[in-house]
Amino acid sequence: MNYKIKSRIWIELDDKEFLGEGKVRLLKAIEKTGSLSKAAKSINISYKRAWQLLDAVNKSSNRPVTINSVGGKGGGGTELTPFGKSLIEVFDDMNKQCWKFLDVQIEKIKAL
Amino acid sequence: MNYKIKSRIWIELDDKEFLGEGKVRLLKAIEKTGSLSKAAKSINISYKRAWQLLDAVNKSSNRPVTINSVGGKGGGGTELTPFGKSLIEVFDDMNKQCWKFLDVQIEKIKAL
Repeated sequence: MNYKIKSRIWIELDDKEFLGEGKVRLLKAIEKTGSLSKAAKSINISYKRAWQLLDAVNKSSNRPVTINSVGGKGGGGTELTPFGKSLIEVFDDMNKQCWKFLDVQIEKIKAL
Repeated sequence: MNYKIKSRIWIELDDKEFLGEGKVRLLKAIEKTGSLSKAAKSINISYKRAWQLLDAVNKSSNRPVTINSVGGKGGGGTELTPFGKSLIEVFDDMNKQCWKFLDVQIEKIKAL
């Protein structure tokens, strides 16, 4: 019997989702592509949806998570602020720690 | 800023959900009511849905999670086996431990 324990985490701010897997995926894609439209395309969501997700994060946060760079080759882009980068690092770290922790817990089920 | 970290856990067996929040809720209701139909009613799901959930757990488990008692006052009932009882205890325990663990982790976000 191959038991596994799975988990999903999300962060709430004043009882509303502030950051979850979907938003973290988008922020990572922005970090990689440097553009909201490219990021949306790379994770197969519409530009409108991506914009809404990002807007929700930036509005609920006390500090901006992204900044828009204007002009330059190919027009403006979107980049993560140092705070935005820290957020995804901490989220990933919490996720990994949680999985590691639960891997230990699953032994309790196997021992039943 | 009132950050909270939330989590949901579930147990997979051979890559299929074996036990999650819905099934645990049903098992607890069975334990409380001693009957699958009463349990279904108490958690607002149809008898058919309750039967399917319970059947899925019992079929994927190597040991029965419930037993049917036949006859007696008001016809037969459904009860948890000792293994079934242990399962929900361990699931609840893992959930609580996970929340406790994540409460410590959230301080990392607050410290950013």
